[in-house]
Amino acid sequence: MIVLRTPKGWTGPAEVDGLPVEGTWRAHQVPLSAVRDNPEHLRLLEEWLRSYRPRELFDEDGAPRPDVLACVPDGSRRLGSTPHANGGLLVRELPLPPLERYAVPVDKPGATLHEPTRVLGDLLENVMRATADRRDFRLVGPDETASNRLQAVYAASGKAWQAGTLDVDEHLDRHGRVMEILSEHTCQGWLEGYLLTGRHGLFSCYEAFVHIVDSMVNQHIKWLRVTRRLPWRAPIASLNYLLTSHVWRQDHNGFSHQDPGFVDHVLNKSPEVVRVYLPPDANTLLSVADHALRSKDYVNVIVAGKQPCFDWLTMEQARAHCARGAGVWDWAGTESGEREPDVVLAAAGDVPTQEVLAAAQLLRNHLPELAVRVVNVVDIARLLPSGEHPHGMTDFEYDGLFTPDKPVVFAYHGYPWLIHRLAYRRTGHRHLHVRGYKEIGTTTTPFDMVVRNDLDRYRLVMDVIDRVPGLAVRAAAVRQEMEDIRLRHHAYIREHGVDLPEVADWSWDG
Amino acid sequence: MIVLRTPKGWTGPAEVDGLPVEGTWRAHQVPLSAVRDNPEHLRLLEEWLRSYRPRELFDEDGAPRPDVLACVPDGSRRLGSTPHANGGLLVRELPLPPLERYAVPVDKPGATLHEPTRVLGDLLENVMRATADRRDFRLVGPDETASNRLQAVYAASGKAWQAGTLDVDEHLDRHGRVMEILSEHTCQGWLEGYLLTGRHGLFSCYEAFVHIVDSMVNQHIKWLRVTRRLPWRAPIASLNYLLTSHVWRQDHNGFSHQDPGFVDHVLNKSPEVVRVYLPPDANTLLSVADHALRSKDYVNVIVAGKQPCFDWLTMEQARAHCARGAGVWDWAGTESGEREPDVVLAAAGDVPTQEVLAAAQLLRNHLPELAVRVVNVVDIARLLPSGEHPHGMTDFEYDGLFTPDKPVVFAYHGYPWLIHRLAYRRTGHRHLHVRGYKEIGTTTTPFDMVVRNDLDRYRLVMDVIDRVPGLAVRAAAVRQEMEDIRLRHHAYIREHGVDLPEVADWSWDG
Repeated sequence: MIVLRTPKGWTGPAEVDGLPVEGTWRAHQVPLSAVRDNPEHLRLLEEWLRSYRPRELFDEDGAPRPDVLACVPDGSRRLGSTPHANGGLLVRELPLPPLERYAVPVDKPGATLHEPTRVLGDLLENVMRATADRRDFRLVGPDETASNRLQAVYAASGKAWQAGTLDVDEHLDRHGRVMEILSEHTCQGWLEGYLLTGRHGLFSCYEAFVHIVDSMVNQHIKWLRVTRRLPWRAPIASLNYLLTSHVWRQDHNGFSHQDPGFVDHVLNKSPEVVRVYLPPDANTLLSVADHALRSKDYVNVIVAGKQPCFDWLTMEQARAHCARGAGVWDWAGTESGEREPDVVLAAAGDVPTQEVLAAAQLLRNHLPELAVRVVNVVDIARLLPSGEHPHGMTDFEYDGLFTPDKPVVFAYHGYPWLIHRLAYRRTGHRHLHVRGYKEIGTTTTPFDMVVRNDLDRYRLVMDVIDRVPGLAVRAAAVRQEMEDIRLRHHAYIREHGVDLPEVADWSWDG
Repeated sequence: MIVLRTPKGWTGPAEVDGLPVEGTWRAHQVPLSAVRDNPEHLRLLEEWLRSYRPRELFDEDGAPRPDVLACVPDGSRRLGSTPHANGGLLVRELPLPPLERYAVPVDKPGATLHEPTRVLGDLLENVMRATADRRDFRLVGPDETASNRLQAVYAASGKAWQAGTLDVDEHLDRHGRVMEILSEHTCQGWLEGYLLTGRHGLFSCYEAFVHIVDSMVNQHIKWLRVTRRLPWRAPIASLNYLLTSHVWRQDHNGFSHQDPGFVDHVLNKSPEVVRVYLPPDANTLLSVADHALRSKDYVNVIVAGKQPCFDWLTMEQARAHCARGAGVWDWAGTESGEREPDVVLAAAGDVPTQEVLAAAQLLRNHLPELAVRVVNVVDIARLLPSGEHPHGMTDFEYDGLFTPDKPVVFAYHGYPWLIHRLAYRRTGHRHLHVRGYKEIGTTTTPFDMVVRNDLDRYRLVMDVIDRVPGLAVRAAAVRQEMEDIRLRHHAYIREHGVDLPEVADWSWDG
């Protein structure tokens, strides 16, 4: 490495208007600010530019002279052709195993529970192992990989650690490809550099604290948007985020750890680059992660919980659901197929999905004549118009799925306004009612978090009663019952410190 | 200062399940994870808790014993009563001068130009001078204060600088209260600490790079939301941001410096804490800054340009306009008052305001029979429903201002989707059409930035023609003319490197 230190503004005007410029702070701005009106400034500018002796560098037509061009490298030493500057030339497909090997078995929906990120950890262990020789896959994170339930990877690679070790230390490895450091900035910088040099990776992060790299990911997205338009720039592996330890399950950490807004931030950026996925269970997480790890030139944001979550879909169903990005879960609704549904219950995210299914079950029991459609959204950009995002649905698709005129009660993982921002152009938008995180709640029980933010199953049933024409009067007793349970919940958690048994022990009864 | 270093998990179980815990990484998580089922874990927990000898600390009713309570300080030495921990007890009102002293004279709208932040700089110089003895006001920023046109403050206080100086240095002062450091994180940390200890300040920042502190401001907003509910917690001065060098005028920096999304980020947070202002000219900036500097317990975000900007309002008009937050500029429209307007042209932000006024003028000339209402929005939260934000308009107000059924063409400073996210509940939402920054453009002419993002006057006129019923056919020639000018613009800037004379030399002809 050669370090060349030069005065700031070197070779520029030494002095302007009697004040020193070269080598001073004044060289940081435009050194000659009045060229248009001040002949002395114009003279200094001419002198400065002539000092480069352009006649020696360019011919009469303004083209560089042959001896100048002779310095320019050719072939693979050109900037656009050397893998040192164009890392995409080095990218190899990541060896990903068949997902079926890691899928959780699902005989019927909602009968078993798994921690989705733990299931993903098994897949990542395989990827880590399969790249042991190639050494082109790394997992970075500001948190403990084990705390996010991805610890299976340690069987294939330890944590990078160059300093001394103690007897009690575990999983430390001088050549480890799991990189933990409590600095989101460092993780982001590491991974960006790693991707830009033609390799692959995944950044796992507490959802709330990924905002720390908002500004860094901006620049990466802007870079990708521009370089995607350069034909010589070879695609690089996508920047993949796994946001876990999310807003709904901060049972010990509380308000300071609750912020689902990274999705909002990213979705303001170039649609050709950004992708956001909210898999509702373990198998959909596998499918989404598989897709993200195979993709190029994207920023993929995956939001998935680490807490036990019901398994809703078989691997085959999960693949189909993720491929379509949003779809009807007919087994969860009460549509007969003979007429249009009376209401659509939609969910995006693992906790909202559970609440929507519990609400669907309550509606089935209390209002069995109501035709309820249950829709699940994995790929949130599907809600955008097709002209606004490559994944956006056409109006035909959207109107068919959500109806143009029936109430839609949408339970969303993050700030509810995002769904309106995505869907405001749709025909049925005025019938869309969204529940989500409203910056309320702190250290409390899991169910109390959803109650406080009006995302709970009982509130969703009340929303349906409030919005389906004709139900308000007829179902007033049901509505009252829902309200009563919420009050009972309020009293119960204060006395027992845990959720109502009917909530804590709830399961899908399909 | 006393530094006490203890083993991690000190006094907890030394060993659990045969593995060392105290003094190791294992003490970071729950050390006894199976208390419910494992009698040995339960025994260890009991032993651990008994080691604190609770019987010596608490009486039979569980209350602390008198000798324990004797250690608790009383009076002003209590945590909530000492100004060391409750800095709000120390806050004094900031001495702010009459704004009229700094206001720019406006005989008629749009006849003169000023750099709004430079005008604000004169006001800040006065504040800096008036606090010279009290020393409780600071200006922090990652950029050059002079580059953001606030350099007048140097006449009252230099830049804080403790190290050596050179002959060429200017405005450096060991006791300076202007604090420049190219680290948004440090600026934010400095200012938060300063406010929490009972003092005042302003953070001036490039708009795009304030995202660097997204996560920090989250925590400050959360802290304010919680402490506002604590009766003993005295209010502190608001955290005030001046976002300048904004998205529309990055003539030299380009795409990497363009991101107006901080407003979106902040507006997801607790409505009782966050306030966002987009003053359209110098006098409105003075009024908004005056309000922000007097306020308590808020996070105020002010977005204002540093480039020459038309002066639209007198100081008196500016005060009234900022107090109402959004209002009709009747001098700019063509409403007769005898019938409802055919279309509303709305703007939020300095550049959008200029484009809307230019569009209003084009409409007046080309389609004089059209009744155009011009609305300007300073306080963006006014668009929210009154139940969602303390500044939100009632539906009566909103419908009166924007009409329930006429097309609204809204030119917004930032990402256009934000306006939909704020106004989606309004009666006339389906008639609302928003233009804003779409993540397009880079180093180019000022007008080309607005053209590329479809925010320019010609595009706005086309939007009006497209949306007012009956105009499409009748005004086809006008629409074509607008399209032609945009094409001419495209060719002209490539040839001349500057904007069309009719754009560069445009002024309001009221």
